[in-house]
Amino acid sequence: MATITAVEAFDIRFPTSRELDGSDAMNPDPDYSAAYVVLRTDGAEHGHGFAFTIGRGNDVCVAAINAHAPLVTGLDVAEVVGDLGGFARRLTHDSQLRWLGPEKGASHMAAAAIINAAFDLAGKVAGKPVWKLLADMTPDQIADLVDWRYLSDALTREEAVELLRAAEPGRAEREKRLMERGYPAYTTTPGWLGYDDEKLVRLAREAVAEGFTQIKLKVGADLGEDVRRMGLAREAVGPGVRIAVDANQRWDVPQAERWMAALAPYDPYWIEEPTSPDDVLGHAAIRRAVAPVKVATGEHVQNRVIFKQMLQAGSLDILQLDACRVGGVTENVAILLLAAKYGVPVCPHAGGVGLCEVVRHLSMFDYVAVSGTVEDRVIEYVDHLHQHFLDPVVIEGGHYVTPTAPGMSAEIRAETLTAYAYPEGSVWQ
Amino acid sequence: MATITAVEAFDIRFPTSRELDGSDAMNPDPDYSAAYVVLRTDGAEHGHGFAFTIGRGNDVCVAAINAHAPLVTGLDVAEVVGDLGGFARRLTHDSQLRWLGPEKGASHMAAAAIINAAFDLAGKVAGKPVWKLLADMTPDQIADLVDWRYLSDALTREEAVELLRAAEPGRAEREKRLMERGYPAYTTTPGWLGYDDEKLVRLAREAVAEGFTQIKLKVGADLGEDVRRMGLAREAVGPGVRIAVDANQRWDVPQAERWMAALAPYDPYWIEEPTSPDDVLGHAAIRRAVAPVKVATGEHVQNRVIFKQMLQAGSLDILQLDACRVGGVTENVAILLLAAKYGVPVCPHAGGVGLCEVVRHLSMFDYVAVSGTVEDRVIEYVDHLHQHFLDPVVIEGGHYVTPTAPGMSAEIRAETLTAYAYPEGSVWQ
Repeated sequence: MATITAVEAFDIRFPTSRELDGSDAMNPDPDYSAAYVVLRTDGAEHGHGFAFTIGRGNDVCVAAINAHAPLVTGLDVAEVVGDLGGFARRLTHDSQLRWLGPEKGASHMAAAAIINAAFDLAGKVAGKPVWKLLADMTPDQIADLVDWRYLSDALTREEAVELLRAAEPGRAEREKRLMERGYPAYTTTPGWLGYDDEKLVRLAREAVAEGFTQIKLKVGADLGEDVRRMGLAREAVGPGVRIAVDANQRWDVPQAERWMAALAPYDPYWIEEPTSPDDVLGHAAIRRAVAPVKVATGEHVQNRVIFKQMLQAGSLDILQLDACRVGGVTENVAILLLAAKYGVPVCPHAGGVGLCEVVRHLSMFDYVAVSGTVEDRVIEYVDHLHQHFLDPVVIEGGHYVTPTAPGMSAEIRAETLTAYAYPEGSVWQ
Repeated sequence: MATITAVEAFDIRFPTSRELDGSDAMNPDPDYSAAYVVLRTDGAEHGHGFAFTIGRGNDVCVAAINAHAPLVTGLDVAEVVGDLGGFARRLTHDSQLRWLGPEKGASHMAAAAIINAAFDLAGKVAGKPVWKLLADMTPDQIADLVDWRYLSDALTREEAVELLRAAEPGRAEREKRLMERGYPAYTTTPGWLGYDDEKLVRLAREAVAEGFTQIKLKVGADLGEDVRRMGLAREAVGPGVRIAVDANQRWDVPQAERWMAALAPYDPYWIEEPTSPDDVLGHAAIRRAVAPVKVATGEHVQNRVIFKQMLQAGSLDILQLDACRVGGVTENVAILLLAAKYGVPVCPHAGGVGLCEVVRHLSMFDYVAVSGTVEDRVIEYVDHLHQHFLDPVVIEGGHYVTPTAPGMSAEIRAETLTAYAYPEGSVWQ
């Protein structure tokens, strides 16, 4: 009978701003960071998870992880992995901590890190990757993961179970296909705003050569520059490759409409984060104005309640869930179920630190047990920092290879935890 | 030429859960707390502000204040008080810290504490209470306070300036009336869920005797009990006094509709926080269903973008701004302007620690310079913890007396900062 003996939190930062990797119109100088957590047990397995941030403020997420620690330390591992939904609600419903949200911002990101670490632990205890742990659950077990509060006007538990039952017959066949082919990816590597023309064109061509059928460009700082860069990218990849553009929340609603009209001749596939991630109605207005260009958002959407409304209001063509911003696997299961009910494809946000590693588990579970399809679905891929993880992503022919190691692939190498510790690690001296 | 030499943060907690003061259906055991900040200068005046929390997690807001401190320390006081809007945007637009929101949760509450402290400092430097500091600004100066990003589909700067100009002729007359009569209040003191029937009835009768024309009851834990307590309260105050009810986010949309149908015979005036504060569309659906009972919300609304949508979607009859959750005075000025454009009365959330002290400045400014009216407007009043403040609220005949001391009334007594410091203060030993 193992017990969680400690919740250990680490402030890990990578000096990515030195190379302008990850630079966009809203985030010109990110230092990709992780508020990293280990659920230490007295058993053979431990749980690993993290919140992703871009530098300053990573310490606030570490403080928020520490504030949740007393709710977790001392719990029985078997009870935690046997009721992961209950474990998650214990964190997000704490009667005093919820005042900092509810269910948003630094405290929710901290809860997510701990909840994902509990899934990592559960996968390791079961000897399964998390996508498989989830895909082997019954419809009722999956529904038990979800916090149903605030959802019933859009999706009831009963509807969700019905939807999951309808997908059960095909699970084995899809799992087989997933092991053979992996899951489709697209790449943001060419498109960072800080890259010069030569690098943009070279990386765009390389992406196509590697088998990607979609790339993404950051836009939003300067309209003339964006039109020019979009032209270069379109010329580099040809007419058959999708080019998504990403404004990282830079615009008001009328501005988004004007900007996209100027980019339209280059056939953008989707416009991502055109405005505030809180603006359900704004996204709906933009979507009506820019069609047939699709509207995508989600990496900064705080929780299932905002996603619910975006689906109700028709704000989205593409839902971009993030593994670490909303409340971990449990809230993401709710979001996958909502998306399935509304028939909206999920194309997760990734990149940063370890987001590619963990989010593939969610999309792969979705394919096997929820939506049952990969049509128009791609996981973002960025070639950053994978070498720091014990179970890094592998991309082959524009696809994520399906992971088989037990857990959620969240574990960072011990030497990285030492070297990139902020501010005392060797990298920061 | 004074400089801000330090940003000092304090974790202050009051053990209010011992008496069930402040107990409601979602928050059964709050320990009212303040993440308190002092902008220390080398001049004669210092700035004081705080984030309000209910216990656990107050340390996270303190960490978030500390994370913002490097953006503030070393700034010239004259420059800060001369461009308070620019100062606020420096905090909320930080390219790395905004990843924790943007503009929500613990990091936004920390920014609010610092922004309010800057207004406290500005008031003291000018020798004016903050309501008067604001009410003496020109329409353009007021518009300069606002972060206009994400607002232009609902309210442009030009419209706001026009609205403020239209209110200019009556300013002097309304200021005179404000000094004579104060600003109307209502009281939540009788209605906490942890109070027994005798205490509820006694406090309700006392409230009417003291001149209040509106009280508020917490509901949402048990329907039968709520109907019974609502009956007792209605009998105690008679038919002429308004009784608002407050569910503190307990319900889904369909549940809110059923619950309010059961309470309708006792003539509730408004239903407050019927569901998630993030649910713009849910509030709009509830509002359509429960009319003529009014829908009120706002104490947990994270920022101007959610309020904008609530006004656009018709989610609200009453907008309950909070002085310390959104980004301080500057974002609250934006919210007051939005409410004025849409003709929705603002009845601020107060109570907690010091919320009554600071929020009156916003309503009083609104009356003098923005909406120009107190019709259907009341500030919440709760008789908790005022003795810890240097410039506590005074209530006379159901009205807030207009404060005259320079600053924003946010300063806590030195002996309180020592005794209630968590966890080392004498009260916590």
